[in-house]
Amino acid sequence: MQVAVIGLGSMGYGMAASLARAGMKVAGYDVRAESVQRFAAEHGTAAASPAAAAAGADALVTVVVNAEQTEAALFGAEGAAAALKPGAVVISSATMAPDKARALARRAEAAGLDYVDAPMSGGAARAAEGALTILASGRPEAMAKARPLLDAMAKNVYVLGDEAGIGASFKMVNQLLAGVHIAAASEAIVFARRLGLDLGKVYEVITASAGNSWMFENRIPHVLDGDYQPRSAVEIFTKDLGIIADMSRSVTFPTPVAAAALQMFLMTAAAGMGKEDDSSVARLYAAIAGIELPARKS
Amino acid sequence: MQVAVIGLGSMGYGMAASLARAGMKVAGYDVRAESVQRFAAEHGTAAASPAAAAAGADALVTVVVNAEQTEAALFGAEGAAAALKPGAVVISSATMAPDKARALARRAEAAGLDYVDAPMSGGAARAAEGALTILASGRPEAMAKARPLLDAMAKNVYVLGDEAGIGASFKMVNQLLAGVHIAAASEAIVFARRLGLDLGKVYEVITASAGNSWMFENRIPHVLDGDYQPRSAVEIFTKDLGIIADMSRSVTFPTPVAAAALQMFLMTAAAGMGKEDDSSVARLYAAIAGIELPARKS
Repeated sequence: MQVAVIGLGSMGYGMAASLARAGMKVAGYDVRAESVQRFAAEHGTAAASPAAAAAGADALVTVVVNAEQTEAALFGAEGAAAALKPGAVVISSATMAPDKARALARRAEAAGLDYVDAPMSGGAARAAEGALTILASGRPEAMAKARPLLDAMAKNVYVLGDEAGIGASFKMVNQLLAGVHIAAASEAIVFARRLGLDLGKVYEVITASAGNSWMFENRIPHVLDGDYQPRSAVEIFTKDLGIIADMSRSVTFPTPVAAAALQMFLMTAAAGMGKEDDSSVARLYAAIAGIELPARKS
Repeated sequence: MQVAVIGLGSMGYGMAASLARAGMKVAGYDVRAESVQRFAAEHGTAAASPAAAAAGADALVTVVVNAEQTEAALFGAEGAAAALKPGAVVISSATMAPDKARALARRAEAAGLDYVDAPMSGGAARAAEGALTILASGRPEAMAKARPLLDAMAKNVYVLGDEAGIGASFKMVNQLLAGVHIAAASEAIVFARRLGLDLGKVYEVITASAGNSWMFENRIPHVLDGDYQPRSAVEIFTKDLGIIADMSRSVTFPTPVAAAALQMFLMTAAAGMGKEDDSSVARLYAAIAGIELPARKS
């Protein structure tokens, strides 16, 4: 089984390594040459373009930032689609609007390829362990071809429907909630500080109460530790809540709570923190209101 | 130990019963005579006014809706404060702004009473079992007097500070998050329906993903089951997010995400669902967008 992976960032590198560990022959490409060299040294072979990575491959995994980059990797200059074996399966992992996933699937199918819409959840650590959660949808024959790769990269593979776009829809519902919960956690923890509360106790009480969320529990320790090294950056959520805002208009469904959260992420990015940890939304609230949070350590 | 409980609603009844079960002599008062009669038949003695319940009591628990009702129970016509034993402790459970809790404590102390600010979390079932969570603060001598009662009513007693208002502040931080999470869960589940997703699968995927919250996990089953019998009503959150909105202005701290959530609860109440389960916010989104949710069963 010969596999190409396009995108060797914090997620893609671990996913490519997981595929290699499962015994597949993996060629990696990334716009950053140093990632490609490291991958070649540790796990597989280096490729100088998406087309070079895909040459003769049975399967392709794209782990880039968005729909536009996925389209470029597949169909742009030196794109992978034309280089893959006929009938190869494309596994698309970037978070994108469902209509974009459907359009990419149609174009891949027109080129004689299979396509699985496979956005994922779980951070870099889980990607490295092959323990991601993947929200997959696609034609049964595409899913059958993709399955060994999905199982190598993920602990939980949800097969959510038999056409592209369904996986993307589930991911967007998750991102709506995740983004709102990060903004709410940030609002609440700085509000608590404004009220003079001991933030360690706030963390203890809230995580044991009905106000808890996965994001509160996971992100607020970054604030308490003053650690804003990006595990997931603010600009991931300006992007993903931006997709929600686009979808909200395109399907005519109001999302006022997500819209308020998006504005907080945009303010945080506008204040220069776009590439820092998404818990930096708390620093934005603190900066606005002149409130001290635990000192920044990293 | 002689105790008075003012307010025998879904929470107060269970709390009064828990105190009686712990061997205390409990007199109960409620504006609804039938609740008082039922309490007298099952657990303690009936009182015809807060003052009558409090006559000669060592401790008083107020379990009414808000600060105004707590003030009336203590200091209004036939109020309890003047009837309690000198040095008795008042345990105040209603959710209220911290400055209201501080003002009530000062007034109780001026009347020769001790005061513990003790908002709670956990529903009617946990109240009946004596298994609530209580977020307590107050002077150490007040806390010492209150402790046997708190332990009889709660499984988890957090002692959060040595003055009234701190417990209230923790409760408000929890309510900010809880309210936002219910609104976000409602927004997300109806958005998912708009995207054509299977809502049972959405529940399965989200509760296993980073978008989960305690409220999503607890409330969305009400939507999936079409069961809008109020475990906790919409108007609890128009009240509590209303308190957040008041506090936001009084401490000059912006809470835009909570403000968006409050508007959704207000729309739901304005549409006639104020006394129904707070998951009815999902019905409001569905009604706005002409989307079918699982049929109402109760």
